[in-house]
Amino acid sequence: MDAGSTVEPGFVVWLTGLSGSGKSTLARALRKELVSRGHLVKVLDGDDVRRGLCADLGYSAAERRENVRRVAEVARLLVESGFVVVAALISPLESDRRMARGLFAPDEFIETFCSAPLSVCEERDPKGLYRRARAAELTEFTGVSAPYEPPRHPEIVVDTARVSVEDSLSTVLVCLGERGVIDAPST
Amino acid sequence: MDAGSTVEPGFVVWLTGLSGSGKSTLARALRKELVSRGHLVKVLDGDDVRRGLCADLGYSAAERRENVRRVAEVARLLVESGFVVVAALISPLESDRRMARGLFAPDEFIETFCSAPLSVCEERDPKGLYRRARAAELTEFTGVSAPYEPPRHPEIVVDTARVSVEDSLSTVLVCLGERGVIDAPST
Repeated sequence: MDAGSTVEPGFVVWLTGLSGSGKSTLARALRKELVSRGHLVKVLDGDDVRRGLCADLGYSAAERRENVRRVAEVARLLVESGFVVVAALISPLESDRRMARGLFAPDEFIETFCSAPLSVCEERDPKGLYRRARAAELTEFTGVSAPYEPPRHPEIVVDTARVSVEDSLSTVLVCLGERGVIDAPST
Repeated sequence: MDAGSTVEPGFVVWLTGLSGSGKSTLARALRKELVSRGHLVKVLDGDDVRRGLCADLGYSAAERRENVRRVAEVARLLVESGFVVVAALISPLESDRRMARGLFAPDEFIETFCSAPLSVCEERDPKGLYRRARAAELTEFTGVSAPYEPPRHPEIVVDTARVSVEDSLSTVLVCLGERGVIDAPST
């Protein structure tokens, strides 16, 4: 272990879901809450990562897999140092998420499905990407022209189409508490 | 800032030098010392990185550059979270190290040249790599069949051929103290 002043063990909350399913929003809320509880927290957001570490990658299946692999490797480095990593990544394929999971001990990888129907995500379209995908200005867009495989056995599911960010956060915190990786929520 | 319990600003000590010049040894010594002073420290060692994050890369000039780029991007993520990153990477080309430096604020990137003549490194040959390179079992090996460009303006130079690890460490600590990124050494 490299981290000098941490005692808590690290783990990953791996948020998967369609574009617009609320991953980044939940990631920020989770970071704020966990930081306030004294954890070291790092958000690895897909959009950010693709401007830096993965700036050389496109959206083919092979490049998406490599994107997932690099984020998982970085998450592993951080977890080794006692960080809670919140990865917010579409990561559409079950096999790629399984590969990411394989880099961690069983207790360290908490797959969290931000479940929202395509119709809801497309209605939200916070970045205008669905519109561009439907206009064929974007290719290989998840949910439109590339597949999304919902997780079969995620540790956590949040119904981000129906519940508020606060309630989604609460669900995650309860699950993390039950798994013993954080103290039970005070709420 | 994501890290909850850190106050110190992060920075990178980027150790460059030939294989066998003592980068990893110095990195470990530096980690131990800085951890004992309460810093969050992460060593990014070239050998480790090439088994994980950069496992897909070979040793062509383009692949070495990509190796440096990824390590620098990961270092940036860590520095943002208050870590001291000790990167121990041959990083043979000035242009690649300059690219890495470009990801950081001026005070955050401390290029440290582990200076040892090729003859000394080859004599040490701790991993038997020079022998294999001379036998042409390894190609594109730095110092034998690929270039090493010594840094022109490194922040720190340690003469690892002549001085002990303890003295190299001491040199680095004094320089870090003078730069104000750590408290002045107590020795």
